[in-house]
Amino acid sequence: MSRKRLEGFTRFEKYEDALSRLLTQVSVAIESEMVPVTDAAGRVAAEDTYSLRDYPPVDRAALDGYAVKSLDVLSASPSNPVILRLVGSVEAGEIPKFTVNVGEAAIVFTGATMPEGSDAVIPFEEAVRKESYVYVLRPAQKYKNVSRAGEDIKKGDLIIKRGLTVRPWHVAALIEAGITEIKVFKKPRVGIVNVGNELLAGGGGKIPNSTGPLIHAYLKELGCEPVLIGVVPDDVEEISSTVSRVLRDFDILVMTGGTSVGGKDLVPEALSRVKSASLIFHGVNLRPGRTAGAYLIEGKPVLMFSGLPVAALVGLEAFVKPLIRKLMGAAPLPEPTVRVRVRRRVANVVGFKSFFRVVVYRENNELFMEPLRLSGSGIISTLLKGNAILVVDENIEGYDEDDYVNVILIGPIYEKRPEFLDQEASTSS
Amino acid sequence: MSRKRLEGFTRFEKYEDALSRLLTQVSVAIESEMVPVTDAAGRVAAEDTYSLRDYPPVDRAALDGYAVKSLDVLSASPSNPVILRLVGSVEAGEIPKFTVNVGEAAIVFTGATMPEGSDAVIPFEEAVRKESYVYVLRPAQKYKNVSRAGEDIKKGDLIIKRGLTVRPWHVAALIEAGITEIKVFKKPRVGIVNVGNELLAGGGGKIPNSTGPLIHAYLKELGCEPVLIGVVPDDVEEISSTVSRVLRDFDILVMTGGTSVGGKDLVPEALSRVKSASLIFHGVNLRPGRTAGAYLIEGKPVLMFSGLPVAALVGLEAFVKPLIRKLMGAAPLPEPTVRVRVRRRVANVVGFKSFFRVVVYRENNELFMEPLRLSGSGIISTLLKGNAILVVDENIEGYDEDDYVNVILIGPIYEKRPEFLDQEASTSS
Repeated sequence: MSRKRLEGFTRFEKYEDALSRLLTQVSVAIESEMVPVTDAAGRVAAEDTYSLRDYPPVDRAALDGYAVKSLDVLSASPSNPVILRLVGSVEAGEIPKFTVNVGEAAIVFTGATMPEGSDAVIPFEEAVRKESYVYVLRPAQKYKNVSRAGEDIKKGDLIIKRGLTVRPWHVAALIEAGITEIKVFKKPRVGIVNVGNELLAGGGGKIPNSTGPLIHAYLKELGCEPVLIGVVPDDVEEISSTVSRVLRDFDILVMTGGTSVGGKDLVPEALSRVKSASLIFHGVNLRPGRTAGAYLIEGKPVLMFSGLPVAALVGLEAFVKPLIRKLMGAAPLPEPTVRVRVRRRVANVVGFKSFFRVVVYRENNELFMEPLRLSGSGIISTLLKGNAILVVDENIEGYDEDDYVNVILIGPIYEKRPEFLDQEASTSS
Repeated sequence: MSRKRLEGFTRFEKYEDALSRLLTQVSVAIESEMVPVTDAAGRVAAEDTYSLRDYPPVDRAALDGYAVKSLDVLSASPSNPVILRLVGSVEAGEIPKFTVNVGEAAIVFTGATMPEGSDAVIPFEEAVRKESYVYVLRPAQKYKNVSRAGEDIKKGDLIIKRGLTVRPWHVAALIEAGITEIKVFKKPRVGIVNVGNELLAGGGGKIPNSTGPLIHAYLKELGCEPVLIGVVPDDVEEISSTVSRVLRDFDILVMTGGTSVGGKDLVPEALSRVKSASLIFHGVNLRPGRTAGAYLIEGKPVLMFSGLPVAALVGLEAFVKPLIRKLMGAAPLPEPTVRVRVRRRVANVVGFKSFFRVVVYRENNELFMEPLRLSGSGIISTLLKGNAILVVDENIEGYDEDDYVNVILIGPIYEKRPEFLDQEASTSS
């Protein structure tokens, strides 16, 4: 079968070129909003946010002990203790109302504001108290056991960069920095339109719409606000009018199905009829997912993916995730990857960037990987049994037994080789 | 300073022992509920869930072409095509109302139900149509280009295991499996009580409660339903009565502060006074976080952590995350780790399991790591500059330059060595 004629495509564009054109041509402005810092976790910062103050605000005791003048205790030793007079005590949260002068000390508890005049804390263990005097047994350098004002955060320090997702430690740091509200991106609104008579048929030929809810769940995980607009029949007019009607309500539209039905390319045909539509790409060297495409309509991206769930998922990973990141100025987040030893050959179709669903398991304290053989783009069960994805670039023929490769984990690692791999091997050989 | 007397502790228990006792002694039953599959993404499955049906429900065409009897086309070749009579056409979603008999074929589109009698699909490209006849140029084995009924999911197949978080592909598979509702765990209710006069003081010594919102954000990320109960003063009676009053509303309580204030161990003292309270552990060999502890009260775990944000975060990672996982029967999820080359020595205090905040950056296409020097448990900024955590076991003295270690990424990797590392080195050497 000639690759050139597959599903009516004359060629499959290189994925990286298609993505680069998508990212260059699309520049939807995602709106932003102010939210209280305590509600901001999980949202994406819309601007660089800087500290309004020093933190800690004052010098504080870092442990329980005696606040002293470091110069007073320079020579202290167990055989020659320095004797200081206790002039007070400070608990955390109190404002000391006295000063520590030469020859004096004060009891301080962890977190307490250091009394004026003191510049070091002698731990309780390194001194002996006798009534209102304390015998210091060890010296302490200036600022020993003192949390300095501003040592954690200084006024003007960058707390969170635009594009970063607010994590728990950002929340704490923003509060310490004196910030109560932060500007975050509104969640991008993504509309999902599923095209296909088979999703509508009443007469028994109907199949359930599983790809729509899959996309919905994926976009929610990604921090978007997805809406399932509904199922539209295989009809160019209806598809065009649906897109024209709903586009204004969304930042991005995702269409599934009709990308190569009956060789008619229903969805591209329908999109091309919408006013001001321009094609960004259609047909990429991805497996699965080669029928993916995108139009730009009224400045907004309309993505088209196969109606088959695994192909649609690859389309989301390959195009929608980088697009959302770019619109929010976000750096790629770390993904859970592991290095594994190949147990059974993985053969790629050269020219295609392929997403293999694979199984990672532990054996003799080493991580092994086997690909799942039955791997059509309709076979969702490969993502249930499989717990990792191996991405193979288009110029790689595959990987041999005992090669080492990196895979992206999507589920827990099996603690031994799962038995279903035997069935796998036998049913499809 | 003797380790034994630190903050009044006589010893720091081995972390693994403390955790193991916590997990053994606590067996709170987290409630479950039925939710629509389309709302289940991100929730944790509360029982093994199996398919109610085969999927696909019928044999379907895997591409556009001609449905044939494979025996008819065994000898087909371009020089000797097999001529078949077209008897109909089936679109996706249609129920074929005819049968393919010997010598016959039918047009089928991707996803269409295979007409009775047919068992293979010849792609359009491998045949030539002439009016109501088709000239087949290539043979096809039985079931070639046919998605077999049940090839993806069989009735009784496991779709999702108890304890797994529902991901987008589970949603799609559950729908295909005929499941509309799934039993998931209710989000564990975790109450947060922050103890400390310094968080309440009106007179200027007040510091903001950043640890409470940090814990709140962390627990939300973890899939819990956290509630900030409020700040309680350093008063044993008030702490005890707060715990007694609120415990019934939560599955777990997290207390911060007062774990070693003034050597008085306020929170442990207060918890020990609550009826039926029994100590699980107090004092562990974690750095930061060694003042962590837990009581069991009325069968529920009450965890105690330092009020300092980084120490509290280590407590959450070390105890609360594994506890929640255990209560939901969840396997550890993959974390984003990378292998990095040590650029500056990391020195551990032997005997302690330490959590170093480190910086990972790329240089000459290799990943390097440097620890942040200023690393007290109050220094939240180490989690802003640092983008990874290095966990060093208690029997390891540290890592030397050019050693390779695995670190857990908590933020994007720096594309070059950040300049602040120079300041780091100079301010604290």
